[in-house]
Amino acid sequence: VHPLDLHHIGHAVSDLDAAVDLYERMFGAVCDDRATLAEQGVHVAALLVGASRLELMAPTEPDTPVGRFLAKRGPGMHHVAYEVGDIREALAEADAAGAQLIDPEPRSGLHGLQVAFIHPESVAGVLVELVETRGGSDGGWS
Amino acid sequence: VHPLDLHHIGHAVSDLDAAVDLYERMFGAVCDDRATLAEQGVHVAALLVGASRLELMAPTEPDTPVGRFLAKRGPGMHHVAYEVGDIREALAEADAAGAQLIDPEPRSGLHGLQVAFIHPESVAGVLVELVETRGGSDGGWS
Repeated sequence: VHPLDLHHIGHAVSDLDAAVDLYERMFGAVCDDRATLAEQGVHVAALLVGASRLELMAPTEPDTPVGRFLAKRGPGMHHVAYEVGDIREALAEADAAGAQLIDPEPRSGLHGLQVAFIHPESVAGVLVELVETRGGSDGGWS
Repeated sequence: VHPLDLHHIGHAVSDLDAAVDLYERMFGAVCDDRATLAEQGVHVAALLVGASRLELMAPTEPDTPVGRFLAKRGPGMHHVAYEVGDIREALAEADAAGAQLIDPEPRSGLHGLQVAFIHPESVAGVLVELVETRGGSDGGWS
Protein backbone atom coordinates (compact mmCIF):
# COMPACT_ATOMS: atom_id res chain seq x y z
CA VAL A 1 0.00 0.00 0.00
CA HIS A 2 1.36 3.41 -0.93
CA PRO A 3 -1.03 5.95 0.58
CA LEU A 4 -1.18 9.35 -1.11
CA ASP A 5 -1.61 11.16 2.17
CA LEU A 6 -3.39 11.06 5.47
CA HIS A 7 -7.14 11.34 4.93
CA HIS A 8 -8.28 11.98 8.50
CA ILE A 9 -7.78 11.03 12.13
CA GLY A 10 -10.72 9.52 14.01
CA HIS A 11 -11.35 10.19 17.68
CA ALA A 12 -13.89 8.38 19.86
CA VAL A 13 -15.91 10.70 22.11
CA SER A 14 -18.74 10.13 24.52
CA ASP A 15 -20.58 13.42 23.88
CA LEU A 16 -20.43 14.52 20.23
CA ASP A 17 -21.89 18.01 20.73
CA ALA A 18 -19.50 18.77 23.58
CA ALA A 19 -16.51 17.51 21.60
CA VAL A 20 -17.41 19.53 18.49
CA ASP A 21 -17.82 22.60 20.68
CA LEU A 22 -14.44 21.96 22.33
CA TYR A 23 -12.62 21.67 18.98
CA GLU A 24 -14.36 24.77 17.63
CA ARG A 25 -13.44 26.77 20.71
CA MET A 26 -9.93 25.46 21.38
CA PHE A 27 -8.64 24.81 17.83
CA GLY A 28 -10.81 26.96 15.59
CA ALA A 29 -12.24 23.79 14.01
CA VAL A 30 -14.95 24.08 11.38
CA CYS A 31 -17.63 21.40 11.39
CA ASP A 32 -18.13 20.33 7.81
CA ASP A 33 -20.71 17.62 8.08
CA ARG A 34 -22.60 15.48 10.57
CA ALA A 35 -24.10 12.11 9.90
CA THR A 36 -25.20 8.88 11.51
CA LEU A 37 -23.65 5.72 10.08
CA ALA A 38 -26.13 3.14 11.36
CA GLU A 39 -24.12 0.21 9.98
CA GLN A 40 -21.07 1.28 12.01
CA GLY A 41 -23.13 2.36 15.03
CA VAL A 42 -21.76 5.90 15.16
CA HIS A 43 -22.80 9.50 15.05
CA VAL A 44 -20.00 11.30 13.22
CA ALA A 45 -18.91 14.92 12.92
CA ALA A 46 -16.37 15.80 10.23
CA LEU A 47 -14.17 18.74 11.23
CA LEU A 48 -11.48 20.77 9.54
CA VAL A 49 -8.64 21.87 11.82
CA GLY A 50 -6.47 24.08 9.69
CA ALA A 51 -5.92 22.08 6.51
CA SER A 52 -6.42 18.71 8.18
CA ARG A 53 -9.45 16.59 8.87
CA LEU A 54 -10.75 15.09 12.08
CA GLU A 55 -13.62 12.67 12.47
CA LEU A 56 -15.27 12.71 15.90
CA MET A 57 -17.40 9.65 16.59
CA ALA A 58 -19.88 8.90 19.35
CA PRO A 59 -21.58 5.50 19.60
CA THR A 60 -25.28 5.16 18.80
CA GLU A 61 -25.52 2.37 21.41
CA PRO A 62 -23.15 1.01 24.07
CA ASP A 63 -22.95 -2.37 22.31
CA THR A 64 -21.19 -1.09 19.18
CA PRO A 65 -17.47 -1.10 18.30
CA VAL A 66 -17.03 2.53 19.39
CA GLY A 67 -19.22 2.00 22.46
CA ARG A 68 -17.06 -0.93 23.55
CA PHE A 69 -13.89 1.07 22.78
CA LEU A 70 -15.11 3.87 25.08
CA ALA A 71 -16.07 1.44 27.85
CA LYS A 72 -12.62 -0.17 27.72
CA ARG A 73 -10.28 2.76 27.02
CA GLY A 74 -12.24 5.96 27.46
CA PRO A 75 -12.39 8.75 24.87
CA GLY A 76 -9.36 9.35 22.67
CA MET A 77 -7.62 8.58 19.43
CA HIS A 78 -9.41 5.79 17.59
CA HIS A 79 -8.10 5.35 14.03
CA VAL A 80 -5.88 6.77 11.30
CA ALA A 81 -7.26 6.94 7.76
CA TYR A 82 -5.02 7.02 4.69
CA GLU A 83 -6.05 8.04 1.18
CA VAL A 84 -5.48 5.50 -1.54
CA GLY A 85 -6.17 5.77 -5.25
CA ASP A 86 -7.60 2.27 -5.73
CA ILE A 87 -8.91 0.57 -2.60
CA ARG A 88 -9.13 -2.97 -4.01
CA GLU A 89 -5.51 -2.80 -5.14
CA ALA A 90 -4.52 -1.35 -1.74
CA LEU A 91 -6.36 -4.16 0.10
CA ALA A 92 -4.61 -6.80 -1.99
CA GLU A 93 -1.22 -5.18 -1.26
CA ALA A 94 -2.00 -4.87 2.45
CA ASP A 95 -3.07 -8.51 2.58
CA ALA A 96 0.15 -9.58 0.85
CA ALA A 97 2.15 -7.52 3.37
CA GLY A 98 0.54 -9.35 6.30
CA ALA A 99 -2.28 -6.98 7.21
CA GLN A 100 -5.28 -8.55 8.92
CA LEU A 101 -8.22 -7.14 6.94
CA ILE A 102 -11.37 -6.33 8.91
CA ASP A 103 -13.07 -5.53 5.59
CA PRO A 104 -11.77 -7.78 2.79
CA GLU A 105 -14.28 -5.94 0.59
CA PRO A 106 -14.64 -2.14 0.70
CA ARG A 107 -17.79 -0.67 2.19
CA SER A 108 -19.46 2.71 2.14
CA GLY A 109 -18.20 5.27 4.65
CA LEU A 110 -18.83 8.93 5.32
CA HIS A 111 -19.70 10.94 2.19
CA GLY A 112 -20.28 7.67 0.33
CA LEU A 113 -16.54 7.05 0.00
CA GLN A 114 -15.32 3.47 -0.29
CA VAL A 115 -13.47 2.51 2.89
CA ALA A 116 -11.96 -0.56 4.56
CA PHE A 117 -10.38 -1.17 7.96
CA ILE A 118 -7.22 -3.08 8.90
CA HIS A 119 -7.03 -4.72 12.33
CA PRO A 120 -4.75 -2.96 14.85
CA GLU A 121 -3.16 -6.29 15.84
CA SER A 122 -1.38 -6.29 12.49
CA VAL A 123 -0.33 -2.59 12.52
CA ALA A 124 1.46 -2.23 15.89
CA GLY A 125 -1.79 -1.43 17.72
CA VAL A 126 -3.16 1.17 15.30
CA LEU A 127 -6.58 0.76 13.69
CA VAL A 128 -6.01 1.84 10.08
CA GLU A 129 -8.71 2.86 7.63
CA LEU A 130 -8.11 3.04 3.89
CA VAL A 131 -10.24 5.58 2.01
CA GLU A 132 -10.49 5.56 -1.76
CA THR A 133 -10.30 9.08 -3.13
CA ARG A 134 -8.96 8.33 -6.62
CA GLY A 135 -6.59 11.22 -6.09
CA GLY A 136 -9.19 14.01 -5.98
CA SER A 137 -7.49 17.09 -4.58
CA ASP A 138 -9.99 17.57 -1.76
CA GLY A 139 -9.79 13.95 -0.73
CA GLY A 140 -13.43 13.54 -1.70
CA TRP A 141 -14.35 15.21 1.53
CA SER A 142 -16.27 18.26 0.42
CA VAL B 1 -5.36 28.22 18.69
CA HIS B 2 -5.74 28.10 14.93
CA PRO B 3 -3.40 25.36 13.70
CA LEU B 4 -2.16 25.67 10.14
CA ASP B 5 -2.29 21.94 9.59
CA LEU B 6 -1.55 18.61 11.18
CA HIS B 7 2.18 18.27 11.77
CA HIS B 8 2.41 14.56 12.58
CA ILE B 9 0.76 11.68 14.40
CA GLY B 10 2.73 9.94 17.14
CA HIS B 11 2.45 6.23 17.82
CA ALA B 12 3.89 4.40 20.82
CA VAL B 13 5.62 1.14 19.92
CA SER B 14 7.53 -1.42 21.94
CA ASP B 15 10.08 -2.36 19.24
CA LEU B 16 11.14 0.60 17.10
CA ASP B 17 13.06 -1.39 14.46
CA ALA B 18 10.17 -3.80 13.98
CA ALA B 19 7.64 -0.96 13.71
CA VAL B 20 9.74 0.98 11.17
CA ASP B 21 10.11 -2.20 9.14
CA LEU B 22 6.35 -2.83 9.30
CA TYR B 23 5.49 0.68 8.06
CA GLU B 24 8.10 0.48 5.29
CA ARG B 25 6.78 -2.87 4.13
CA MET B 26 3.03 -2.35 4.58
CA PHE B 27 2.67 1.37 3.76
CA GLY B 28 5.74 2.24 1.72
CA ALA B 29 6.91 4.54 4.52
CA VAL B 30 10.25 6.31 4.22
CA CYS B 31 12.25 6.76 7.40
CA ASP B 32 13.48 10.32 7.44
CA ASP B 33 15.32 10.54 10.71
CA ARG B 34 16.01 8.66 13.92
CA ALA B 35 16.95 10.21 17.22
CA THR B 36 16.93 9.67 20.95
CA LEU B 37 15.24 12.40 22.97
CA ALA B 38 16.73 11.68 26.39
CA GLU B 39 14.65 14.36 28.11
CA GLN B 40 11.43 12.72 26.90
CA GLY B 41 12.76 9.18 27.38
CA VAL B 42 12.11 8.06 23.82
CA HIS B 43 13.84 6.68 20.78
CA VAL B 44 12.03 8.24 17.81
CA ALA B 45 11.78 7.44 14.13
CA ALA B 46 10.28 10.06 11.81
CA LEU B 47 8.51 8.53 8.83
CA LEU B 48 6.83 9.86 5.73
CA VAL B 49 3.74 7.93 4.65
CA GLY B 50 2.70 9.49 1.38
CA ALA B 51 2.68 13.22 2.11
CA SER B 52 2.03 12.81 5.83
CA ARG B 53 4.30 12.36 8.80
CA LEU B 54 4.36 9.70 11.49
CA GLU B 55 6.49 9.66 14.59
CA LEU B 56 7.12 6.20 16.05
CA MET B 57 8.34 6.27 19.64
CA ALA B 58 9.78 3.53 21.82
CA PRO B 59 10.66 4.18 25.46
CA THR B 60 14.29 4.33 26.56
CA GLU B 61 13.27 2.91 29.96
CA PRO B 62 10.04 1.40 31.37
CA ASP B 63 9.66 4.26 33.85
CA THR B 64 9.12 7.02 31.26
CA PRO B 65 5.86 8.53 29.97
CA VAL B 66 5.83 6.32 26.87
CA GLY B 67 6.97 3.27 28.88
CA ARG B 68 4.07 3.76 31.30
CA PHE B 69 1.67 4.35 28.37
CA LEU B 70 2.72 1.01 26.83
CA ALA B 71 2.40 -0.84 30.15
CA LYS B 72 -1.13 0.53 30.63
CA ARG B 73 -2.56 0.57 27.10
CA GLY B 74 -0.22 -1.36 24.84
CA PRO B 75 1.15 -0.01 21.58
CA GLY B 76 -0.97 2.35 19.52
CA MET B 77 -1.87 5.95 18.79
CA HIS B 78 -0.21 8.26 21.28
CA HIS B 79 -0.55 11.92 20.24
CA VAL B 80 -1.62 14.34 17.52
CA ALA B 81 0.67 17.25 16.67
CA TYR B 82 -0.57 20.45 15.06
CA GLU B 83 1.56 23.09 13.35
CA VAL B 84 1.26 26.59 14.70
CA GLY B 85 2.98 29.75 13.52
CA ASP B 86 3.79 31.17 16.96
CA ILE B 87 3.84 28.67 19.81
CA ARG B 88 3.76 31.17 22.69
CA GLU B 89 0.68 32.84 21.20
CA ALA B 90 -0.90 29.42 20.64
CA LEU B 91 -0.21 28.38 24.25
CA ALA B 92 -1.80 31.58 25.55
CA GLU B 93 -4.88 30.99 23.37
CA ALA B 94 -5.10 27.34 24.42
CA ASP B 95 -4.83 28.31 28.07
CA ALA B 96 -7.60 30.90 27.64
CA ALA B 97 -9.79 28.24 25.99
CA GLY B 98 -9.43 25.91 28.98
CA ALA B 99 -6.55 23.70 27.86
CA GLN B 100 -4.47 22.13 30.63
CA LEU B 101 -0.90 22.85 29.55
CA ILE B 102 1.69 20.16 30.26
CA ASP B 103 4.34 22.59 29.01
CA PRO B 104 3.45 26.19 29.85
CA GLU B 105 6.77 27.05 28.19
CA PRO B 106 7.81 25.53 24.86
CA ARG B 107 10.67 23.06 24.82
CA SER B 108 12.90 21.55 22.17
CA GLY B 109 11.51 18.59 20.25
CA LEU B 110 12.64 16.53 17.30
CA HIS B 111 14.69 18.51 14.74
CA GLY B 112 15.12 21.27 17.35
CA LEU B 113 11.57 22.51 16.77
CA GLN B 114 9.81 24.29 19.61
CA VAL B 115 7.01 22.09 20.94
CA ALA B 116 4.54 21.96 23.84
CA PHE B 117 2.01 19.37 24.98
CA ILE B 118 -1.60 19.80 26.15
CA HIS B 119 -3.03 17.28 28.63
CA PRO B 120 -5.54 14.80 27.16
CA GLU B 121 -7.94 15.40 30.07
CA SER B 122 -8.71 18.80 28.56
CA VAL B 123 -8.99 17.65 24.92
CA ALA B 124 -11.52 14.79 25.11
CA GLY B 125 -8.83 12.19 25.81
CA VAL B 126 -6.37 13.21 23.09
CA LEU B 127 -2.77 14.18 23.92
CA VAL B 128 -2.12 17.20 21.69
CA GLU B 129 1.30 18.55 20.76
CA LEU B 130 1.79 22.01 19.30
CA VAL B 131 4.80 22.42 16.99
CA GLU B 132 6.05 25.83 15.95
CA THR B 133 6.92 25.85 12.26
CA ARG B 134 6.47 29.56 11.54
CA GLY B 135 4.66 28.51 8.40
CA GLY B 136 7.62 26.93 6.60
CA SER B 137 6.26 24.87 3.73
CA ASP B 138 7.93 21.63 4.79
CA GLY B 139 6.74 21.98 8.37
CA GLY B 140 10.34 22.36 9.45
CA TRP B 141 10.67 18.62 9.15
CA SER B 142 13.36 18.20 6.54
